[in-house]
Amino acid sequence: MARTSKAPLLSIAVERDTGEPAYRQLYDQVRAAILEGRLKPGRRLPSSRGLAKDLGVSRNTVLTAFEMLLHEGYTESGIGSGTRVSAVLPEALLSARDSAQTPVGQSTAVPSTKISRLATNLDSMRQRSRTDQRTFRPGLPAVEHFPWNVWGRLAGRLWRHPPPGQIGGGDLGGYAPLREAIAAHVAAVRGVRCRPEQVMVTSGAQQGLDLVARLLLNPADRVWMEDPGYAGLRGAFTAVGAEIVPLSVDREGMDIGQGRGRAPDAVLAAVTPSHQYPTGVTMSLARRLELLEWARETGGWILEDDYDSEYRYAGKPLSALQGLDDTGRVIYVGTFSKVMFPGLRLGYVILPEPLIAPFLAMRAVLTDAPALGLQPVLAAFMEDGHFAAHVRRTRALYAARQRCFLDALARDAGGLLVAEADEAGMHLVVRFENGLDISDKDAAARADSAGISAPALSGYYFDQADAEGLVLGYTGFAETEIKAGVRRLAAAIDPDRIRRD
Amino acid sequence: MARTSKAPLLSIAVERDTGEPAYRQLYDQVRAAILEGRLKPGRRLPSSRGLAKDLGVSRNTVLTAFEMLLHEGYTESGIGSGTRVSAVLPEALLSARDSAQTPVGQSTAVPSTKISRLATNLDSMRQRSRTDQRTFRPGLPAVEHFPWNVWGRLAGRLWRHPPPGQIGGGDLGGYAPLREAIAAHVAAVRGVRCRPEQVMVTSGAQQGLDLVARLLLNPADRVWMEDPGYAGLRGAFTAVGAEIVPLSVDREGMDIGQGRGRAPDAVLAAVTPSHQYPTGVTMSLARRLELLEWARETGGWILEDDYDSEYRYAGKPLSALQGLDDTGRVIYVGTFSKVMFPGLRLGYVILPEPLIAPFLAMRAVLTDAPALGLQPVLAAFMEDGHFAAHVRRTRALYAARQRCFLDALARDAGGLLVAEADEAGMHLVVRFENGLDISDKDAAARADSAGISAPALSGYYFDQADAEGLVLGYTGFAETEIKAGVRRLAAAIDPDRIRRD
Repeated sequence: MARTSKAPLLSIAVERDTGEPAYRQLYDQVRAAILEGRLKPGRRLPSSRGLAKDLGVSRNTVLTAFEMLLHEGYTESGIGSGTRVSAVLPEALLSARDSAQTPVGQSTAVPSTKISRLATNLDSMRQRSRTDQRTFRPGLPAVEHFPWNVWGRLAGRLWRHPPPGQIGGGDLGGYAPLREAIAAHVAAVRGVRCRPEQVMVTSGAQQGLDLVARLLLNPADRVWMEDPGYAGLRGAFTAVGAEIVPLSVDREGMDIGQGRGRAPDAVLAAVTPSHQYPTGVTMSLARRLELLEWARETGGWILEDDYDSEYRYAGKPLSALQGLDDTGRVIYVGTFSKVMFPGLRLGYVILPEPLIAPFLAMRAVLTDAPALGLQPVLAAFMEDGHFAAHVRRTRALYAARQRCFLDALARDAGGLLVAEADEAGMHLVVRFENGLDISDKDAAARADSAGISAPALSGYYFDQADAEGLVLGYTGFAETEIKAGVRRLAAAIDPDRIRRD
Repeated sequence: MARTSKAPLLSIAVERDTGEPAYRQLYDQVRAAILEGRLKPGRRLPSSRGLAKDLGVSRNTVLTAFEMLLHEGYTESGIGSGTRVSAVLPEALLSARDSAQTPVGQSTAVPSTKISRLATNLDSMRQRSRTDQRTFRPGLPAVEHFPWNVWGRLAGRLWRHPPPGQIGGGDLGGYAPLREAIAAHVAAVRGVRCRPEQVMVTSGAQQGLDLVARLLLNPADRVWMEDPGYAGLRGAFTAVGAEIVPLSVDREGMDIGQGRGRAPDAVLAAVTPSHQYPTGVTMSLARRLELLEWARETGGWILEDDYDSEYRYAGKPLSALQGLDDTGRVIYVGTFSKVMFPGLRLGYVILPEPLIAPFLAMRAVLTDAPALGLQPVLAAFMEDGHFAAHVRRTRALYAARQRCFLDALARDAGGLLVAEADEAGMHLVVRFENGLDISDKDAAARADSAGISAPALSGYYFDQADAEGLVLGYTGFAETEIKAGVRRLAAAIDPDRIRRD
């Protein structure tokens, strides 16, 4: 059994009024304890919760310090085993490599699988299963309603006679007619203002996030993120060594005042203003203006992830933040995977003018032009109006599926699960009507055993969760599947189906 | 006019016998001069050549130290303006960001376009033009001979009835039938031994190189590279902050003994053993075994870039290095862009077993599954034998084009340009038969003005070039184009066409 290491950490103290942030004091002291050998390799660190309590600091402070130690290789985290002091410390590696005198043959302890610290850390992050297509998996489109015949016809026609000059290397920003189609689409539907040259086609939204993170962030740069928020954003920022500053989300969206108080010097603020992920909140106009004002004052960047904005069922949508921005601080990210089919893996990033050249230069070195693949097919699909028609059809379909889901919930999970109608999006947050005697993570595990994908709301939080619930997608499933799924879910969470009041 | 800064650098001295490598002594002293303000922001550093001479060290030592300074943000390089001390130093940025006390409104000097140091540095690297399709551009396939009808028919059929379960997120390693087809292909043609699970489909070879670099390398890790060598490899390694150790290439390939002497502790050795890029040398069996032995002893990794191995016109090909490797140290990288068409942008990385899991974990966070795009189409194209048939047809075609090119050279550029037949590949290195009174870079510039893509051989070297010449591709051009091109090239380089002997 691993020993926890309370004793050596008891010498740690966080002082106020030193000007040194608490997380950095903690990071410095733990790092020193590791380097001086007071905390030995393999030792488990105490829980963040316990340490926060002992030191009288917020748990977020502890998590931030721990994340820095992990990123720099002082600690490693294994699934289920907590955070431990690394077996091989970065300093040891560096000094071993610097001493060129060591005869190679003599090195007795050559690790057989040396991988980078980045890869080691990402390996320990929870991995989202991409192939999970089970009932209520959030964000899945109704692929059986996709016009495969039209798509196949366009694909065949375009590839029998590929666009002249386009079978070569291709433009680093993407296939020009597709960039034009995207610019026209986001202008019409989202009020985004851009020239086609600002549109960069990406191999899916995640590649766009990775490139933007590498374009803008240095290690230790601070990034505002919504809490709860999207794991894909967190991964991209963590990979470049940025420090994430989680900010609360209330009924108006991300709390900008909190960000100004805690990290006014952040380099980037990542937001989902149209439909906050996962809570579904729409960021108020006041907050949007406040955020833009922060960016204007500080030269900070704003990353607007507009991941499911095509789906709004009622009410007038607020335009994208990008369209409000007069100072060119907003990077807009969109994807086709959620509207069409996930395997398409085509997305786009819309950049302010000054970022175009460095983005292209970076792309030339790091990843090359996006695959031509289905770009011409998608361009034709959009130009010929099939895309807009598909969005219209699925919008009606998803509105009906949401109603079906809410009805089934009221009928078959009354007293247990409850959700409010949402005017937008592809998922709902379901709450526990009368509380539960188990945590939402336990409820999610029970659903999982019953073959239902129902991630716990608390898992989207960086720090202490404000709320419990389940995040359920309803768009990718036929009505019979939705009804049966709700019954299975209710039975899995509460086997006795005893109403609690 | 910018002043050079000889004076403050004159205090620099490199000492032998200190155990500290020369490049690090130089780096430390220049960095100190910058931090102490002896070298002011904007000051231009002296030329690497001049400084090497003054200090009595190799130019490569100076370039290594300069590259580290550039990577870490102490210097910046603009096109044509040499290397200068950065306007804003990393320390200044960090300390400014740490002092959370600074009221935001007071910061008067907010840069309007802050981008990362990575992006700044990549921006300053020479950008390869991907859309250049001009005569003699190396590595272009004969796209007019590609069976577009077959390809279009398969694309239409597969997308009208997409493979069940494959329109979802898709496997992080790629479309399973394509991975099987690739494993069978490389086993048959290249003697690569692998299970389909070891094959990772990538969006082009460059993405594969970027992911491998991020998987294996930490900043300051050392990487052996062939000198002359491939710029795409250099970009991927530079982007993660690795230190490149260029090694000479002789008639047997990369000089492993030199590597052992200069950087025995390298983490990775990147090689093109089948057909060295750009010299065309095949690495001897003795060198291959020597390289594998180094990897076995030290736990180093070998990256085998087998970029054009489908094209061998005579002689028995040596199998891939990967097939010789009993200890699982070789990462094999291949691409379809050179055999089929560049816009396809599909490649693959074949990993040793222990790297599979960390690679997939990294991909999940950073870039997601590869786009389904044309993967099923390519899988069917391979399974049905169209791929092998296309390679056979183009192999005969390229052999004929090489002969045509050599004949044209003898006929229309005799006494000026000369090349030896090459048993493999898609390009030739053309030398200047009787010397030239201009450099190869000037010759390349003249060719460029005449609309001919003919990169200078010396541009592929990291350090002092051993040899001059032009790197010319012959595969992507019809015979009439080749003949006219040779005449234009000869006239451009030597307007008088005066034989020099």
